Amino acid sequence: MTDLARLSETMAGRLGARWITHEAGRAQFMAAEGHHAAGLPDVVAQPRTVEEVQMLMAAAQGAGVAVVPLGVGTSLEGNAGAVAGAVSVDLSGMNRVLEVAPEDLLCVVEPGVTREALNEELRATGLFFPIDPGANATLGGMISTRASGTNAVRYGTMRENVLGLKVVLPDGTLIPTGSRARKSAAGYDLTHLFTGSEGTLGLIVEATVRLHGIPEAVLAGTWRFDGLDGAVQTVIETIQSGVPVARMELLDPVAIRACNAFAGLTLAEQPTLFVELHGSPQSVREQRTQLEAIGAGHGAGVLTMSLDRDEQRLLWRARHAALPAARAMVADAVTWSTDICVPISKLAEAIARARAAVDAAGLLAPILGHVGDGNYHVFFVLRRDDPVGWEKARAVNEQLIDYALSVGGTCTGEHGIGMGKRAALVREHGAEAVALMRRIKAAIDPGGLMNPGKIFLER
Amino acid sequence: MTDLARLSETMAGRLGARWITHEAGRAQFMAAEGHHAAGLPDVVAQPRTVEEVQMLMAAAQGAGVAVVPLGVGTSLEGNAGAVAGAVSVDLSGMNRVLEVAPEDLLCVVEPGVTREALNEELRATGLFFPIDPGANATLGGMISTRASGTNAVRYGTMRENVLGLKVVLPDGTLIPTGSRARKSAAGYDLTHLFTGSEGTLGLIVEATVRLHGIPEAVLAGTWRFDGLDGAVQTVIETIQSGVPVARMELLDPVAIRACNAFAGLTLAEQPTLFVELHGSPQSVREQRTQLEAIGAGHGAGVLTMSLDRDEQRLLWRARHAALPAARAMVADAVTWSTDICVPISKLAEAIARARAAVDAAGLLAPILGHVGDGNYHVFFVLRRDDPVGWEKARAVNEQLIDYALSVGGTCTGEHGIGMGKRAALVREHGAEAVALMRRIKAAIDPGGLMNPGKIFLER
Repeated sequence: MTDLARLSETMAGRLGARWITHEAGRAQFMAAEGHHAAGLPDVVAQPRTVEEVQMLMAAAQGAGVAVVPLGVGTSLEGNAGAVAGAVSVDLSGMNRVLEVAPEDLLCVVEPGVTREALNEELRATGLFFPIDPGANATLGGMISTRASGTNAVRYGTMRENVLGLKVVLPDGTLIPTGSRARKSAAGYDLTHLFTGSEGTLGLIVEATVRLHGIPEAVLAGTWRFDGLDGAVQTVIETIQSGVPVARMELLDPVAIRACNAFAGLTLAEQPTLFVELHGSPQSVREQRTQLEAIGAGHGAGVLTMSLDRDEQRLLWRARHAALPAARAMVADAVTWSTDICVPISKLAEAIARARAAVDAAGLLAPILGHVGDGNYHVFFVLRRDDPVGWEKARAVNEQLIDYALSVGGTCTGEHGIGMGKRAALVREHGAEAVALMRRIKAAIDPGGLMNPGKIFLER
Repeated sequence: MTDLARLSETMAGRLGARWITHEAGRAQFMAAEGHHAAGLPDVVAQPRTVEEVQMLMAAAQGAGVAVVPLGVGTSLEGNAGAVAGAVSVDLSGMNRVLEVAPEDLLCVVEPGVTREALNEELRATGLFFPIDPGANATLGGMISTRASGTNAVRYGTMRENVLGLKVVLPDGTLIPTGSRARKSAAGYDLTHLFTGSEGTLGLIVEATVRLHGIPEAVLAGTWRFDGLDGAVQTVIETIQSGVPVARMELLDPVAIRACNAFAGLTLAEQPTLFVELHGSPQSVREQRTQLEAIGAGHGAGVLTMSLDRDEQRLLWRARHAALPAARAMVADAVTWSTDICVPISKLAEAIARARAAVDAAGLLAPILGHVGDGNYHVFFVLRRDDPVGWEKARAVNEQLIDYALSVGGTCTGEHGIGMGKRAALVREHGAEAVALMRRIKAAIDPGGLMNPGKIFLER
């Protein structure tokens, strides 16, 4: 009898139809958004309560079975990829908003709540949850990968917006981290340790997150530039000048072409910034004037902006469609997204190198990203049956990571390490720092059962 | 031969006069700002380079000698208190600003740089480091206690302003954490683990911190209220409305009395907010109008504000003198500062309870604090020879902590656990979470040599 069969004996009776062993059912849970091969889980558990998660974790530890947490499967580095002989735990059913406390600008959610569902629930409060990675990811998944996205330049990433967690440890113990206070100096910062740990230390079963007031005025629009460098220089000076832009996204001409084709837009195929400003009516006007003054020296066209929320929604829908739009450029293609983040002053050089490297390799790849944070993505568009293309993409990615690390940047701004960046993690922090991470992992998960094969290279 | 004597054999030759064993020398290093009894270190080491720190740590581990990191001794919970048989490591001599990178809004410092020295160094850049706990603490100390202070309501705490660290582990290994990028999802967040760990995991030898643009306009002043509750309600609504105040400090009438006497001011002895606004000239005017509208309903007097930097400096000097001012209220007195932080909606109740508890106990204690964060301090003014007063203060403190924890607050907003809050840490997070912190501690510092007796109760 395998370990998994022993665990099944315990859990199948408890979870019933939520202990999924038949192939058609399991096949629904092949986290497949990224470029990594999507594995088929051997079994999928769908706990609905904290107690069920605790029971499952204790039983899995008892049986020596590995546990792979899973939200809605939008992660991009195989972070939630199935592992042979493990149980994939689908937390998307734990999707209640447990409490909204507008008076404290926070809410308490289960891990399976998606960002769109949360903002729908908040609609009447005048508050919103700003972190927006594009995909309609779960909060639990976003916490686990330390996600960010378009609004992070103003509101911070998940790192800045999680106040506290409840986590089930590998032995089934439930612990709280953090508090509802805005700040605390009480002991080790377990909240930040679990945020970004990609399910390798425990299962997040509850999160207290910050909310922000919906700004009085929102001004958004697109801004075309003569050249890529001018667009990026404008971003750099905007950040250096402290203009509090809410979103500042770059799409290069290839990305614009993809979005036009996919979303029926007619944007000129030039480097374009998608910009959004939040504040009082006076303040957004001020910010716009500051932007225009900066752009004027860098080949900017007219900054076309609107206060209309419906127009803005269309705009951001087009931006968020960039990944599927890229994929749609080639029949049966897969996209592989890089995730470099550099100090802002190095962004122009980083993006110029990326464009040159992609072109030199003869690859098709829009470049775009959350440039206000120094974070950009190259979306390689590849066919599975093109091993030469994959190898070229791999080489370009490594080259871009090397440059980022040489200027103090990071191999991943927001996607996490998952399966794809494990070697890069060692290059970024060094063997000693990663050894320390392993010691922390071993202290919390001595059996090595939590999401194995992620973050750390097998030894 | 004691362990310390063996360590002395190794280190005295290397550090020379910076290995201090004579009593008059050691007596300069009795961290004594708080209410805890100040111990005399058995030996004080003053490394000046990373290599010296590494050598010291490896040698201390080899000899089984405990290590207590020390900055300039302004911490308030005995966080850097000497330990018998240990070496106190004075890092205040490692005080170079290694790099200022205005183009990336960051700088790299050694741990002994003080916040005033750093801002002096930054003067020509148009940038500043905002975290201001009042005391002219070292950056290393501020990182270790996750400090914050007056500006945190707008700029965040040390938690939000440290991008990366270099840390010497107990065995002498040097590791980097974080990067120079604004965000990263690369592996466990070691930066945040060491930030707030109070020297119990390793020695911070370098930090990369964020800088912020000096605002175009700074408007600051005082704002008197009819009653304490009206002042606090004004704070609560200001935060709930999202007015981006830069500082919002409360001084109750007792605190005003102390500051008047100590700093030669003539403020009316009424609950008073010290307020500072940052932004464009138009934006600070807008913020002021918003504040006045909120205060009008809560018994506010005239909001007297000034754009003059010299007047502002006097104002904040008076506010920062509150601790010595409280101490000066009674001859030969000691102050004991509590450090409650609650969700903003609970602040009025928390402060009302604090005032009532202090008065019921017949204690002398100004109440003040960083109320925009929900963080307030009661400064008990006590004579060492008044055991009844100390016992009453202890009881009031416990009562205030209990209330804070009952509403999701924390026992320490910014001072850390040190020696004084170790039992409260367990009440706040629970035995299981603290047990997890201990496991992390044991994984990084298996010998238990880093700052023993802090954060965790002895067993």
